[in-house]
This record gives sequence, C-alpha cells and structure tokens, in this order.
Amino acid sequence: MNANKDKLVKAITGRDEDFAQWYTDVCKKAELMDYTETKGFIIYRPYGYKLWEGIQAYLDNELKKTGHENVYFPLVIPESLFQKEKEHVEGFAPETAIVTIGGNEELTDRLIIRPTSEVLFCDHYAKIVSSYRDLPKKYNQWCSVVRWEKTTRPFLRGSEFLWQEGHTIHETEAEAMKETLDILSIYEKLGKELLAIPFVTGIKTEKEKFAGAEATYTIEALMHDNKALQSGTTHYFGQGFAKAFNIQFQDREKNLQHVYQTSWGVTTRLIGAIIMVHGDDSGLVLPPRLAPVQAVIVPIQQTREGILDKCNEICDKLLKAGVRATVDSQDKSPGWKFAESEMRGIPLRIEIGPRDLENGDCVIVRRLDNQKIVLKWDEAIAMIPDMLEAIHAEMYAKALANVKSNTHDAYTYAKFKEIMAKEGGYVRMMWCGDRACEDKIKEETQATARCIPFTQEVITETCPVCGKKATKIVYFAKAY
Amino acid sequence: MNANKDKLVKAITGRDEDFAQWYTDVCKKAELMDYTETKGFIIYRPYGYKLWEGIQAYLDNELKKTGHENVYFPLVIPESLFQKEKEHVEGFAPETAIVTIGGNEELTDRLIIRPTSEVLFCDHYAKIVSSYRDLPKKYNQWCSVVRWEKTTRPFLRGSEFLWQEGHTIHETEAEAMKETLDILSIYEKLGKELLAIPFVTGIKTEKEKFAGAEATYTIEALMHDNKALQSGTTHYFGQGFAKAFNIQFQDREKNLQHVYQTSWGVTTRLIGAIIMVHGDDSGLVLPPRLAPVQAVIVPIQQTREGILDKCNEICDKLLKAGVRATVDSQDKSPGWKFAESEMRGIPLRIEIGPRDLENGDCVIVRRLDNQKIVLKWDEAIAMIPDMLEAIHAEMYAKALANVKSNTHDAYTYAKFKEIMAKEGGYVRMMWCGDRACEDKIKEETQATARCIPFTQEVITETCPVCGKKATKIVYFAKAY
Repeated sequence: MNANKDKLVKAITGRDEDFAQWYTDVCKKAELMDYTETKGFIIYRPYGYKLWEGIQAYLDNELKKTGHENVYFPLVIPESLFQKEKEHVEGFAPETAIVTIGGNEELTDRLIIRPTSEVLFCDHYAKIVSSYRDLPKKYNQWCSVVRWEKTTRPFLRGSEFLWQEGHTIHETEAEAMKETLDILSIYEKLGKELLAIPFVTGIKTEKEKFAGAEATYTIEALMHDNKALQSGTTHYFGQGFAKAFNIQFQDREKNLQHVYQTSWGVTTRLIGAIIMVHGDDSGLVLPPRLAPVQAVIVPIQQTREGILDKCNEICDKLLKAGVRATVDSQDKSPGWKFAESEMRGIPLRIEIGPRDLENGDCVIVRRLDNQKIVLKWDEAIAMIPDMLEAIHAEMYAKALANVKSNTHDAYTYAKFKEIMAKEGGYVRMMWCGDRACEDKIKEETQATARCIPFTQEVITETCPVCGKKATKIVYFAKAY
Repeated sequence: MNANKDKLVKAITGRDEDFAQWYTDVCKKAELMDYTETKGFIIYRPYGYKLWEGIQAYLDNELKKTGHENVYFPLVIPESLFQKEKEHVEGFAPETAIVTIGGNEELTDRLIIRPTSEVLFCDHYAKIVSSYRDLPKKYNQWCSVVRWEKTTRPFLRGSEFLWQEGHTIHETEAEAMKETLDILSIYEKLGKELLAIPFVTGIKTEKEKFAGAEATYTIEALMHDNKALQSGTTHYFGQGFAKAFNIQFQDREKNLQHVYQTSWGVTTRLIGAIIMVHGDDSGLVLPPRLAPVQAVIVPIQQTREGILDKCNEICDKLLKAGVRATVDSQDKSPGWKFAESEMRGIPLRIEIGPRDLENGDCVIVRRLDNQKIVLKWDEAIAMIPDMLEAIHAEMYAKALANVKSNTHDAYTYAKFKEIMAKEGGYVRMMWCGDRACEDKIKEETQATARCIPFTQEVITETCPVCGKKATKIVYFAKAY
C-alpha cells in the first residue's frame, strides 16, 4: 500500500512461514514486552501491561462478586516451611530460586522465592481458623512468582511471571469441590466474554496434575499452529495440605476436623494465548472488549485545515459514547500509522481525509478482516459500539470454528499418530487410565493428555494403545 | 458499656500508655496484618489490603490522568548491572537480599531482589529512546521491594513492602523538575483528599536525600506520639543515571543529549500513617473516603421479627446512595459488634432495635467522637453521605490543628533541645547548611532534618548550633 507500511509489516516473519519467529516478532514489534539481561525475566511494556490490567479488572471484579478477598503474602518462603508437603516440594524444588544472603549475611534458613504460595497460606490459615464459623476463607492475591525455567518464551514460559493465585479453605468436601468448579466456570467466562477465546475444559490426568493436588481442572486453548496452551488451572486439594499444616476447626458437632482446600490461577500466559489465537501476518488482533484502544482515528493530510479538528471532535464523541478512542496525530505518514495500528491490533481504524471532510464521511476499517465501510460521521459514532460487539462475537465464533475443525476422533492408535504427525490439533481418543499408555503416546508423538472432558462419550470400547478396556475419552494435543 | 466490649477493648494497650505497643495491638486486632516466620515479611490480611487497594485506586487514577503508564519490570537485578551508578549501589548494597541459586545451580552473576528499580528502568530506557520525539517516558509500577532491615515494624519498616515506583525521563531539566514537583503535589492531594492527613512538604538535606539523587522532595506526616513519618518522596536525578547508563537522545538541534530523570514512590507505610494519625484507644479510626465499610448497621435483638429485614432494607438503600454499607448479622452480641466496628474504625454505626422499629428511628454513632444522633430512616439515608463528608473534613482539620499546635520555632539551640526532650513534634530552626550541625543535632537530640520547606522565613540570622550565618529554615523532628 505504501513503502512505510511494507517496511513495518515486512519486519515481521510470516505467520505460516515460521510460527515461533512470528510470535516473537509480534511480541517485540507491538511493544508488548522487552527482554532483560536475565533470561526468562521480561519487561511488560505499557501496551502489554495494559492487556494484563484489562484481564485483572475483569477477573478481580468477578472474584469479588463471588465473595473472594484480596490479600498479599510474602515473596519468600523459608526452606524449612516449604518442605512440609512432600509431593508439593518434590514438584517445585528443582525449579526454585533461592535467596541465601540477606543484609550481607549468610541465611541459616534459606529463603525460596515463591513459585506458588500454598504453604504460606496454609501456615496462616492454621493460625486464624478454629471454628466452622471461621469458614470459608476465600483469599486471592495478584503477584509475580519465580520458577527457574531452562527454555523461556515471552508470556508463555518465564522464570518470572505475573498471575493471580486463589487459596480457599472450606468446611466440607462438597463446598471445596464446588469452589474448584465455580472458578473454572469464571475462567471459561473470562475466555468467552473478554478474550474471545473458547476453552476446552476438563480434568487433568494423574500425570499432568498439580504437585500436591487430588484433582486439577484446566482450561485449554488451541493456538493457530494447532498446539494447545494450558491457560489456567484450578486444584482440589482435599485435606492433604490441611493435614500437613494442621489446619483444623471445630465442626458443628464440636468435633475437630481438617479443612478442605482449593487453589487456582491464571497468568500472563493469557496474553500469549491472545496473540496466538487471534494474530495474523500484520500483527496482533485484539478482542475489542480488552483492547486498550478500540478505535484509532487517522487523519489523512492532517495539516490541511479542519482535518485534525474534525478527528478530535469525533474522538470526543466516541469517548462520550464509552468507546476507547484516540487520534493518531503523530508526525508520520498515514501508511505508517495504518501499519502500526494493525501491528497493535486496534479493532477499528477510522480515516478522515480532505474529501471525507467535504462529504461528511469517514472510512472505517475493521482490523479483523480489513473490511471497509464508508459512513456519515453521526452514523459512525452511533454504530461503532455495536460494530465492536459484532467483532467480538465474530472473533469468538472464528476461534470456536477453528477448535471444531481441528478436533478429531481417533479410533486407532495408527490414526492418532497420523493426525498428530500431520495437522495436529486436538485428538480425542479412548484411554485405559494407565500411565504407561500416556507415557508411550508422549514419547512417540509428543502429544500429551490435555484433559478428560466433563462430557464423556464412548467411541471405542478399548484403549487403542494397549487394547485394554477403555475407561475415559481424553483430549490429546501437542502443547506449549 | 458491656462486658464483651470491655474485653475486646482491654485487649489493646492504651494509646498514651505505650504508643508502640498500642500500634502493634491495633495492627493485629483490627486484622490488618499478621506476622510470618520470616522477620520483616508480613501478611497483608484482607482488611489491611483493602486499605492499600483504596490508595492504589485513587493514585493510579491520578497518575493515569497525568499521562503515566503502568509497566512491570523484573523482580531481580543482576549484580553487575546494579553496580553501574556508584552512589546508588553504596546506598543500597548493605540491605540487599541476593539470589545465588537458581534451578539447583550456583549463579555466576548473582541476582539482587530489587530494593528499587532505577537501574532496570535506565537499562531499558537506553534501548528504547533515540530522539526527543520519544520523550517523555512516564512509567510507573506497583510491586513489592525488598530491603533487609534489622528493626522491623508492620507497615512502617519491613524487609518487604508494597509500593508504587514511578520512573520518568525528559528532554529538559525544567520538565523533569516540574514532574518531580507535580508528583509531590499529587501525593499531597492524596493525603488531603483521601487519607485526611496534612503533610509538611519540602526538600531533603544532602544527608537525608536518596542515594543517587540530585534532590529529594518529601511529604512528612506527624504521628500522635509527635514523631514524624516520612510518607513518600520524589527524586530529581538530573543526568546522573543517564550518564551512567548512557540514555541519550538526539535533541531538536540534532545534538546528542542525556535525558533528565525522576523517580518517586509511596508505600504501604501510608497505612501506618493512617493508624498513628487518626487511631485512638478503641482502635482504628478510618477516613471515610478510604474506609472499606463506611457504615455498619447493627441489629439489636436481631432475632425479633422485622429487625433484620429493616436493617437489610436500609442497607440496600444506602448502597444505592453510593455508601459502602453492610449489616453485621453475626451470631454475636451487639456489644461485641460495637467494639469490633470501633476496632476496625468504621466511620458510622447505625443501630436498629425493637423500639426503633416501632418509632421508625435509628441511632447513628460517629466513630470519630462517639457522637450520637437519632434520625428517622429516610432522614438517615438522605443525610449519611453528607455526614461522611463532614467526618472527612473534621478528621483533616483535627490532624492539621495537631500539626500546628505541635510545631514550634526555636531561636536558640537550648530551646530546641528542651522542646525535643519534652513534647517533641516539629521544631523549626535556622540552619547554616553544614552537615556537622545536622550530625550534632541528631546525636544530641535524636532529631533529624525532615525537610527544608518551600516557603522560607528568617527567624534568626545565625545557626543556633554553630553561630555561623544561617541559610535556611528547616523542620526538625524525631522520626520513624
């Protein structure tokens, strides 16, 4: 279209040419993040952090509406405390960062930077709970955690990442289980209502569950390269941690009981999901409800009298109508601005040039599909809120159609391997429940069990891998 | 009033009996915080964290309105990077916590948990800025920092605390200096509009300024025990960090220049200020605009027919009027509830009992001064928003009157020592500008220079300590 635009777009790798490189290019060129000298510790730049703030605002409101309270627990966990729950420490110890020096002195009880905070919450809960009247406690915190990773990628896998971690304790098993599933529903709704991402939900296999949990539930998203991304999890702990940390209460019959516990979290990984579900060769495509800027107004020949004034006037009216609008009045060419707004995934671009000024028109371009429409100014202002909602619905529908067309049933293991080798995506296959089959699948195809869906069907009587009786249908996929 | 109430109130030490113990009691009994096994690392419990969320919401909005953008920078700083600005590293190195092990391996470049993030922002700014067109950058982040402290107290001095840290770079000295002072005004307004705390503002002496700054500005609050609390600071860096980190840009005349820089922050220490400025023998007294609950409705004989229904009805109407109201329907005595709402500093208590139900009345009690008023239900609902505003104004006026009556001028050093030994508070005294006099004052009276106020007066021609020509009037006080 224009030399400048070509330059900016050419600066990113084609999405279908090299998906991994395309992803990194978008992260950098859309100014979502930057690297630092320390591997796996990234900077969330303003535009990237705004996406996280949008996710926070939505989810924090949902959690508060359902009776959760925010808290802040320490950054560090004494090594001695960390070791109290056996499975948990085995799962996390290999990837911890450890503070050994404080105020120039060697520490006697070394401090682990929290990889997750179960043990701290348990230690506190044991102190503050004594009766069923003190229950439930439904706490959440927004913070960063550190897990020492060998292979790191922006937003997807970092040695430090931002998240929310909920930790709740309850009087009964039923109540704790309900909490675990209620939160999963809130996460699913976050995908549907805010991110325009459909999740496949279900329970994790023993092999894939959280260290220390009795059951882990997951939301899984399918990326454009047909790999799955675990996008959030909720855990039911039963009384495991409660027994290790002695969190007891007097129940309604005056007997001492251990509490039932849950934890759950979503992370900045969701930003990676947005990029890889919706993005294209021109960069980001943001779901309108989350987009920090929903409509950018680009003046054409902005030095001509009246152009910039009209842009500002329309912008003010859009802001009043609740649209996050802005005028791009930078001293750059329209072509450059088009490319930049595309790279940043702004849902609508509004162009106003000299002829539009004469005719009372503006050109509106949808980022999603480059579709153009010419409207009178007042029409545009009146219609844009609905146009944004329509884009959200279309993006969700498109992503859902993609999940459907890339989900296959495998009746034989040969077919399973063929699909995994070719197109990838989700493959639904029956499973006997044995870890051995899961390991074999992973080894031979790199695919892992993403989840056991809530709605079970029987498509073969036996496990196609070993021939034994099948007990469950499972979603398999190669995953991030 | 009631045995239960007496018990809860007696559980805290009298404010004028042992101020330090009273403070700790309030922190614990109002359930603002809890200790952990690791000294100086506290838990912000829901009620305490809500105060921080209120401060965040106010300040975040003010910062965004003035063009600041939020970001998130890493938790850790490589030791090699930390050492680039000399004064800065000398100031902070003794109190750092250091990660020496990651993923079971000894690190070659050890990682310092951020005590403040100047060096990370500088390193990034050097990469992303090349022209005056890229300026200013006005970034802020909400996070926790770690400074290894020997003596720790909840909210006032912790090894980990929560804060916001702003880091900005500018084209000119004037613009950076304006930013430094604009933020100070925002902090002052936060005190006046939200916390009902009047701050004394001014510039720090060389001895008291931030490590690496050219000038540090401060907001100082006076506690009930007449000690000062530094409650926030803004720093003007000039080009010091810019030169150490090579943050250069091409100016409007196409010459290479170093940027001018600022940083500034307020911390969870503000929660300590709220407690110690407004609290009394019954516990917290919260400023109404910040109070998580502004009005608690306490049913008297709540099992009697109609009582709880009426309480809920009034609560709903208050919520609709924008008042953060709640009904305390716990299975506890009214006396217990009164004491608890007082401990938590809830600005208004509304009592409704059987006789009130008959008469269409309710009793409203102000936490600030225990003043009671009986109102018809509709009157109460209509008047409560104004009553809350009136309480805010009275709390601010009371705190301001306290600052005024505890600020004295000293014409001689003998008088200065006498005031510091007796009542404390702020003492304004002329100063020659020599570090030696400042050190002598500290050694002999424990008082430090809190700030050099913007409005200067001459009360003596010479420095009362050394007799040399005085150059400035200074606020001195013993401080936290």
